[in-house]
Amino acid sequence: MEKKYREINELKEACGVFGIYGPGEEVAQFTYYVLYALQHRGEESAGIAVADGKTVMVEKGMGLVADVFPNQDKLINLKGHIAIGHVRYSTTGASELVNAQPLLYRYRGGFLAVTHNGNLTNSKELRYKLERDGSIFQTTSDSEIIAHLVALSGKKDLVRSLKLAAEQLRGAYAFVLMTEKSLLGLRDPWGIRPLSIGKLNGSFILASETCAFDSLGAEFIREVRPGELVIINEDGLVSEQLIPSRGEKLCIFEFIYFARPDSQFMGRNVHLVRKELGRVLAREHKLKADLVTGVPDSSLSTAPGVAEELNLSYETAFVKNRYIGRTFIQPDQIDRTAGVRLKLNPMNSLVEGKKVIMVDDSIVRGTTSLRIVDKLKKAGAVEVFVLISSPRITHPCFYGIDTASKDLIGAKMDVPEITKAIGADYLGFLSQEGMLTATGLGRDCFCTACFDGCYPEEIHFRKQKHLFGDRY
Amino acid sequence: MEKKYREINELKEACGVFGIYGPGEEVAQFTYYVLYALQHRGEESAGIAVADGKTVMVEKGMGLVADVFPNQDKLINLKGHIAIGHVRYSTTGASELVNAQPLLYRYRGGFLAVTHNGNLTNSKELRYKLERDGSIFQTTSDSEIIAHLVALSGKKDLVRSLKLAAEQLRGAYAFVLMTEKSLLGLRDPWGIRPLSIGKLNGSFILASETCAFDSLGAEFIREVRPGELVIINEDGLVSEQLIPSRGEKLCIFEFIYFARPDSQFMGRNVHLVRKELGRVLAREHKLKADLVTGVPDSSLSTAPGVAEELNLSYETAFVKNRYIGRTFIQPDQIDRTAGVRLKLNPMNSLVEGKKVIMVDDSIVRGTTSLRIVDKLKKAGAVEVFVLISSPRITHPCFYGIDTASKDLIGAKMDVPEITKAIGADYLGFLSQEGMLTATGLGRDCFCTACFDGCYPEEIHFRKQKHLFGDRY
Amino acid sequence: MEKKYREINELKEACGVFGIYGPGEEVAQFTYYVLYALQHRGEESAGIAVADGKTVMVEKGMGLVADVFPNQDKLINLKGHIAIGHVRYSTTGASELVNAQPLLYRYRGGFLAVTHNGNLTNSKELRYKLERDGSIFQTTSDSEIIAHLVALSGKKDLVRSLKLAAEQLRGAYAFVLMTEKSLLGLRDPWGIRPLSIGKLNGSFILASETCAFDSLGAEFIREVRPGELVIINEDGLVSEQLIPSRGEKLCIFEFIYFARPDSQFMGRNVHLVRKELGRVLAREHKLKADLVTGVPDSSLSTAPGVAEELNLSYETAFVKNRYIGRTFIQPDQIDRTAGVRLKLNPMNSLVEGKKVIMVDDSIVRGTTSLRIVDKLKKAGAVEVFVLISSPRITHPCFYGIDTASKDLIGAKMDVPEITKAIGADYLGFLSQEGMLTATGLGRDCFCTACFDGCYPEEIHFRKQKHLFGDRY
Amino acid sequence: MEKKYREINELKEACGVFGIYGPGEEVAQFTYYVLYALQHRGEESAGIAVADGKTVMVEKGMGLVADVFPNQDKLINLKGHIAIGHVRYSTTGASELVNAQPLLYRYRGGFLAVTHNGNLTNSKELRYKLERDGSIFQTTSDSEIIAHLVALSGKKDLVRSLKLAAEQLRGAYAFVLMTEKSLLGLRDPWGIRPLSIGKLNGSFILASETCAFDSLGAEFIREVRPGELVIINEDGLVSEQLIPSRGEKLCIFEFIYFARPDSQFMGRNVHLVRKELGRVLAREHKLKADLVTGVPDSSLSTAPGVAEELNLSYETAFVKNRYIGRTFIQPDQIDRTAGVRLKLNPMNSLVEGKKVIMVDDSIVRGTTSLRIVDKLKKAGAVEVFVLISSPRITHPCFYGIDTASKDLIGAKMDVPEITKAIGADYLGFLSQEGMLTATGLGRDCFCTACFDGCYPEEIHFRKQKHLFGDRY
Repeated sequence: MEKKYREINELKEACGVFGIYGPGEEVAQFTYYVLYALQHRGEESAGIAVADGKTVMVEKGMGLVADVFPNQDKLINLKGHIAIGHVRYSTTGASELVNAQPLLYRYRGGFLAVTHNGNLTNSKELRYKLERDGSIFQTTSDSEIIAHLVALSGKKDLVRSLKLAAEQLRGAYAFVLMTEKSLLGLRDPWGIRPLSIGKLNGSFILASETCAFDSLGAEFIREVRPGELVIINEDGLVSEQLIPSRGEKLCIFEFIYFARPDSQFMGRNVHLVRKELGRVLAREHKLKADLVTGVPDSSLSTAPGVAEELNLSYETAFVKNRYIGRTFIQPDQIDRTAGVRLKLNPMNSLVEGKKVIMVDDSIVRGTTSLRIVDKLKKAGAVEVFVLISSPRITHPCFYGIDTASKDLIGAKMDVPEITKAIGADYLGFLSQEGMLTATGLGRDCFCTACFDGCYPEEIHFRKQKHLFGDRY
Repeated sequence: MEKKYREINELKEACGVFGIYGPGEEVAQFTYYVLYALQHRGEESAGIAVADGKTVMVEKGMGLVADVFPNQDKLINLKGHIAIGHVRYSTTGASELVNAQPLLYRYRGGFLAVTHNGNLTNSKELRYKLERDGSIFQTTSDSEIIAHLVALSGKKDLVRSLKLAAEQLRGAYAFVLMTEKSLLGLRDPWGIRPLSIGKLNGSFILASETCAFDSLGAEFIREVRPGELVIINEDGLVSEQLIPSRGEKLCIFEFIYFARPDSQFMGRNVHLVRKELGRVLAREHKLKADLVTGVPDSSLSTAPGVAEELNLSYETAFVKNRYIGRTFIQPDQIDRTAGVRLKLNPMNSLVEGKKVIMVDDSIVRGTTSLRIVDKLKKAGAVEVFVLISSPRITHPCFYGIDTASKDLIGAKMDVPEITKAIGADYLGFLSQEGMLTATGLGRDCFCTACFDGCYPEEIHFRKQKHLFGDRY
Repeated sequence: MEKKYREINELKEACGVFGIYGPGEEVAQFTYYVLYALQHRGEESAGIAVADGKTVMVEKGMGLVADVFPNQDKLINLKGHIAIGHVRYSTTGASELVNAQPLLYRYRGGFLAVTHNGNLTNSKELRYKLERDGSIFQTTSDSEIIAHLVALSGKKDLVRSLKLAAEQLRGAYAFVLMTEKSLLGLRDPWGIRPLSIGKLNGSFILASETCAFDSLGAEFIREVRPGELVIINEDGLVSEQLIPSRGEKLCIFEFIYFARPDSQFMGRNVHLVRKELGRVLAREHKLKADLVTGVPDSSLSTAPGVAEELNLSYETAFVKNRYIGRTFIQPDQIDRTAGVRLKLNPMNSLVEGKKVIMVDDSIVRGTTSLRIVDKLKKAGAVEVFVLISSPRITHPCFYGIDTASKDLIGAKMDVPEITKAIGADYLGFLSQEGMLTATGLGRDCFCTACFDGCYPEEIHFRKQKHLFGDRY
Repeated sequence: MEKKYREINELKEACGVFGIYGPGEEVAQFTYYVLYALQHRGEESAGIAVADGKTVMVEKGMGLVADVFPNQDKLINLKGHIAIGHVRYSTTGASELVNAQPLLYRYRGGFLAVTHNGNLTNSKELRYKLERDGSIFQTTSDSEIIAHLVALSGKKDLVRSLKLAAEQLRGAYAFVLMTEKSLLGLRDPWGIRPLSIGKLNGSFILASETCAFDSLGAEFIREVRPGELVIINEDGLVSEQLIPSRGEKLCIFEFIYFARPDSQFMGRNVHLVRKELGRVLAREHKLKADLVTGVPDSSLSTAPGVAEELNLSYETAFVKNRYIGRTFIQPDQIDRTAGVRLKLNPMNSLVEGKKVIMVDDSIVRGTTSLRIVDKLKKAGAVEVFVLISSPRITHPCFYGIDTASKDLIGAKMDVPEITKAIGADYLGFLSQEGMLTATGLGRDCFCTACFDGCYPEEIHFRKQKHLFGDRY
C-alpha cells in the first residue's frame, strides 16, 4: 500500500570512512560534522564510535546522519579523544541495522572497532573457511571477516595480526580501525579505494575524501599509500608498509562520479578534472546544437566544460526537486511520468524546438538515460544528443560498485544499439584515452576494469560461486 | 545547549498556495505532490484541507511536507474531491502550529478553509476594529481576519461576503479558499502575489507557481487577474472581477529570487529571465576576470549568463552541503568558520590566485555577501568582484518580504560604502532599467517599491503603529 | 489494514482541569505532574498554558501527557508563574488536535486561555445565535462559546463579562481560565462537575480532584461552590457568587466510577464510599457463592466490600494487561476472544467449578458485562452472579457522560431481561436508596438523573435539535 | 538536565522467552501478542525473529514491545511459520541495543537465533577461554557464548553440538533457539529458570510462563524438564535428555514475585500460592490491627490472604499511578517526596489514626520498605506492622536475580535491626518452612539459596573474578 520512493542511482558508491585522533578534544562532534560532508558516499546508515583510552562506545542507525543523530543526546554520551565514523551504501551485506558500521568487537586484545569502504573479492572463500573452523557471523559485512582474522591470528601485537589478516584479503578496501588507544588506517595493495591523511592542530585525521578536511578547517597531508598501515596513538603517526604495494589503481569513478567536486585525489581537484572531461568529450564529438545541459547533480561540472569547448550556451534545463527524500510516497494514483516530473522537471520553454546536447557521467543499465531523453523530447526538444563523460562500461565491477554483468547495457549492445535503446539522436562516449588525458595523470594510476576488463588482480568471484554455493 | 542550525536567507518568501477541484478524484495525494513542488516557497509548516461536498477536514503541522506527512496515514484519511494546500514562511504571525495553514472555520455559511500568500498592510487596523466589536482571535495570521470579515458581512452569498471583505483589505495577497462544495481563488487588486490557473483532465487547479502544474502533468491556462475572484464548483469555473484591478504589479523578486526556474509568469520562463538578467548585468559591468561563479542555488541561472556574455569560464566554485537541514546541530565546539565551510565550501584549487566574479541575486543586510567574499579570499582569490542581479534595495517591503528598514544596508550606505563593508574589490548592481529590460516586460508590470519607494498603494504601516500601539 | 486497539469504556468522563497561581515559581513543571495525576479523566489529548503577567503560551497535543511532553523541551519553554492544564476525553467536539485544550484567545481584553470539564446543554442554541450574528468557530469545543460570549459582552471588566456569559450557559461545567495576570475558576450553578481549591506554600491551586493536591504535597482548602467564580491574582483569592447557586448536584458517578479512589468530594473519600457501596450492595443481595471478584480497575474497592459483608473470599480473578496502550495492534489474524484474553485474562484455576460473584460499577450497553460473564463461564465458573454498585441507568445524560438513549440497555429492558442478555445467573443492582446511604450524604447532594430522569434543569437538547437541525 | 524516571524494583527478573512452530501460520503476530503477556518479565528491550524454512529475519529494539513495534510495519515483514521472541531485563550485559535479543548468528550449520532467560555462573571463564582461542564478541550477552560453543563443537548435528555446549555451561538458563527449520528449547539441569510447552491447534509453543498460552487461547502441555532439549520441526516434537537432570530447583521467586498471578508452575496457580503465602504468614504473625494493605502490584494476592486469615478488613491504601512510564521526567524542582506521592499515593482518610498491616513480598536493600512505611506514617498511621511473604534474604543470587551481596540488608542486619532501619513498629518475615508449605510442594522443588546459601551447584563467581580479572 505504502511504497517509499527509492531513487535508483545507476551507480552506487560503497561508503565513506573517517577517523580522528585528537588528544584533549571531544571528537564525536567533529565526526558528526564530517559525516555530513561525506554523506553523499552513503545514505543508508551512519554511525560513530568513540574511544577514551580505556573503552569504546558506538552509536549508529539506519538513514542519514540527520536521522541517526537528530539531536545532541547521543553525541553527548560519546566521550573520548579517538573516533571513527561511517556512512554506508550496501553493496554486499543486506541493508539492515546489524550491518551498520562501525562494528565493535571484543577479542583477546581488547576492543576493535571497524569501518570500511570497498569490497573483498574473496569474502565467500574466507567466510567458508572461517565457518568451517567454527566462527560465527552476526552480520554480512566484510568488516566481520577482518575481525575474525585478527582475533584468530594468534598474535599478541595488533600490527602483526593485521598483517596476517591483510595477507588473506583480496579486493578493494580502505579500513579505518580503532582500539581503546589507537586509530589505524589500511588501504588495499592497489589503492582502489581512497583514503587520505589530514591534520587539524594537534589532531590526525583519516578520511575517504579531502572535503572532510575542509569541513573541519583541517590541512591535507597526503594519501595513505597502497598497502600501507598508519597507526596513530600517543606516539604520533607511525607508518608501516603492511603488504607490498602493487601500484596505484584508484577507481576512476571517484573522479567521474562519486567524489564531491571539492575533493582532490593525487593532487587533482575533482571539479576541474570533470570540467576537463567535458572539454575532451566535446573535442571528441564536435556537435552542433542550440544548447548544452547536464543531468543534475553529477554533470554540473562536466556540462559547462562541454558548452565552453563547443562555444554553446549552457543551460540548467532540468530542475531537481531537492526535498524528495526517504519518506516521499511513491505516486500510485497519478501517472508515473508525473511522479518522474516531480523529481526532475525539464523546462519546456528552454528546449522547445531546440537541438539539445545532454551530458551525463555514465550509462549502466540505460534506463535513466532513456527516461531523461524521453523527458527532453516530450518537453519539445527536436533532437537530443547524449554525451557521456566516461567510456562504455563493458565489464562488471567486483570492488564495491554495484553493477552486475547481466544489467550492463554496454556489455550487451554496441553504441548504435544503445543510441536506439535510449531514444537518442546521437550518443557519444568519451574514449578511454581521452578520459585518462583529462585527469592529467598516467594511465597506470587507475583501475579501469569496467571499461576494459583489465582487473588489477585475479578475480575470485566466479570460482567462489562455483565452489561454495549460493549461501556464501 | 542544543542549538538547531537555522539558515538565514536574506530574503524570505511568504508561502505557496494550491487548490484543486477534481470531480471523481481523490485529490489529497495530488496536493501532497504539489506541496513538494512548492516547498521552496516555505519550509516552516505545511498543510492540506479536503472537502467532499459535505464536510471539510484538515491535516497540518510544523516543518517540511515530508515532516508533516511522513507516511500515508494522514493522507488516506483526507477523502474528497476538493483540496487546498499550503507551505509557509512566517512573515507576520509567529512561527507556531496555531498559525499553520489551511485554517478552517465554521460560520453561518458553513465551512470556510483559508490559505494565503502575502501580507495585509492594514491588518493591525482591521484587528483593532474587529476586537473592539467583540471578535476573538486564535491565531496571528491574516487568514483569520478575512474569515471574520466574511462571517460578519451579514451576506448570505459567499461571493458578496468576499466582496465586502476584500474591499476592506489593503496589501498583497493571493487567497485560495474552499467551502464544502467550492474552490475559490482571489488575488489582490495589484496582483502583487502570483496565482495561476491550470487544468488536468477534468480538474481545475490554482497554484502560486506554474511548476505545480508541471509536477502533475497539468496544463497552464492563465493567471488569475488582479482583483479577480475565480469560483470553481460543479458549475465549472466562474470568474468575477471582485474589486477593480489597479494594474499589474507583480513582485519582481519572483523572477529574481523566489520562484523555481521552471516556473513562468506573464509568459516568461524564470530561468531564461534570470539568464538574461546575468547578460544585462555583464553588459553593465564589463569586468575582466579569470572566472565567474554564482552563489548556490539562486544564481545558478544568472552566473552562466554573466560568464557567457563576458566570454569567461563559468565555474561552480562553491559546494553546498544539501544534507544540512532542520536538525543539524550548530557547531559550538569548533571554529564557526568551519561550520560555515561545512555548509558552503569554496574550492581552493579553483580560485587560488584568481580574479573571481561572484554573482548573487540581491544584498539585504550584507552579512551573507561579506561571508562569501571572505570565503573566496581565504580560499586564495586575489580579487573578488561582486555582481548583483538586482538594483540596490533602499526601501522596506510591506507586502510579505521580510525586510525591515533598519536592516537594509542599501538604505544606509551607497555603493562604495557597501563595497567596503562586504570586503569586495568591486561591487556592481544591476540597474533598474536593465532589470526591467531583461524581463522583456513593461516597467508597469512590476512592484519595484523596494528599489524606488514607489509603493502601489498608500502604506498604512507606520500610521497604524502610531494609532493602535504595539499589541497589534 | 492497521487497526489500533481502542478500549471502549462503557462510561466516558469529560476531562480533568487544573490551574495554579504560584508567585515566583515556574509552574509548568507542577502542571505536568498534576496532569499525570488527573490522566485517568482523559487520555485523548493534554495541554498546558502558562502566563507570566504579560503574555500567554500554550503547548498541547493528542495522546497521553507522556506523548505530548515526551521530554523537557516543551516544558522548558513554558515560563511563567500562572498555568492551567487539561486532559481530555471527547464528549462533544471531535477528537481532533484543534479541540485539544487549553484554547487560547486574543480579544479586546487581552489573552484568555480556557479549559473546561462538562457539557453545555444549550451549545447548539448558543452556536446558532453566535454564527447568525457573525461569529466564526475554529473548534467544536464548548470553550470557544464562552470565549465568544466574553468577547461580545461589551464589558471592559472580565468578571462582568463572565457574568453575562455565565447567565447564558446551561448545563454542567467547571471552567478554569487564565489571563496574562489572573487565574479563574467557575463552576455551574448545580455544581455537577467538581472543582476544588488547594494551597501549596504561597500558591493557589484549582483542580477537578483532590488527588491533584496530594501529588504536589499541597493542602486541600475547599470546593468551589456552585455558581461561584474564584479569581486568583496578585491580590490573592477573591470569590464572587457569579450566578445564584441552585443547590449542590454533584454527578454521583464521580463516586461510583470516575474519580481516583484517593480523591474526596464533600468530605468523603472515594475508596471508602466505594467499599461502603459494596457493603450495602451485599446487604441488598444476600448471595451464597464460593468467591467474590471485581472487574479491574473500577471495582477494586467495591468488591472487597461485598466479600467482607458476605464473609466470602475476595479474589482477583482477572489479570489485566497494563501494557496494552494506544499503539496496540488489534488482533485480526487470531481469534478475537484471544485478543480479549490478552487484555483481561480470567484465572481458570480459581473459578473452575465455582459459583462466582462478579462486581462491576454500572451497566450501560451491557456488552462489557456479557463479555466478562462469558469469560468466567468459559474459565469454568458454574454460576456467575453479577452485582452492580449503582442502580439501573434508564435515562441519558446530557451533562458530559457519553450515554445515548438508544444504547442504554437499562432503558430498553428490565432486570430479568438484562440478566438474560448478559448471560448471568443472577443480576442485582444497588438500589438508589442504598447508593445514597452508602455515600453518607443527603439525596439532594447529587445529580441522579440517569437513574430517575430528574434532571437538575430543563433540558434543551431535543428542542434544539428540532430547532437548529443536525448541523449544530 | 533532563532525567528520566527509572523505577527501581528491588528485584529484577531476567527476561521472558517464547517460541512457536506453526505450520501454515504467520507466527510473528502471535509472538507480538505473547510478548505483551510476558512484558512484566522485562521492559528494557524486545525482539522477534522469524524463520520460514530457508532464512531467518529479526526485528528488535530498546523499550517496551509497544516501543519496538509501534505499528504493523515491522511485523508485516516478518514472514514465516517459526518464531522466537524475547523481552529483556539486563542482569549481565549492559543495557544496549547490541545486547537485545533474539541474537542471530550464521555458522557452518546455517542460521542460529538465540534467546535466553537466566545467568551463566561461568560466563567469565568461558569468555576467557573462547577469546584466548580466537573468538570475537559483539555483545556482552550469555547468548553469544552458547553460539560460539555450538559453532566450535565441530559437530555437524545441532543436537550433538548443543550437548557439547551445554556440558560446559554452569548456572541457570532457559534457552529458546531457532534455526531455519526448527524450534528448540533447553533448560538447565536444575530447572532454575522456567520453560513450558503449549499447543494451539497444530502449533507447538514454548514460553517462560503459562499466561503466554492463555493469551493465545492455547493449551498447556507440560513443563520442559531440567536438562531436557525439545526439538520441534516438521517431524513434530522430539525430546532428548541432553544433560542429566540434577533435580528440580525452580527459583521460588517465580511464585513470590516474578510471575503473573495467572501463570502456573508445577501445577500450582501463582495467585493461589500467593494468597496461601499470605494466610501462612498471618498464622505465623497473629497481629491485631485495624486494616491490612499491600504494596501494589506484587502483594495484591498476598494481602487479602493475610486479611482473611486475621479476619481484618483489606484495603487498597495506596493508589499507584499507572501512567508513569519511561518518559516521565524526574521531579527536580519540587520536593522529592511529592514525586514519590505521585507514583504511589497513600490514602490519608483510610489510615489516619489506624494500626496498619502492610504486606510486601521481600526486602532486598530495605529502601523501598523504608519509603513505604514512612508514607503510611506521614499519612497518619499510628502503627505500621510490616509482613513479608518470604524469608529474610541473606545470600546473593548468581542465577540472574540482581542482588549483590553488599546491598542485602538481610545479610548485614538481623530482624530487630531491619525493623528499626525501615522505621516499622513490627516486622515479620515468613519462615522458610511456611513458605514451602504454602506452595504445597516439596522443599526439594526449589532453589532457596538466597535464604539459606544452599546453592544448587558450586559457584564459580568469585573464583573467576580472581582468575580472569575485571575485564570479564
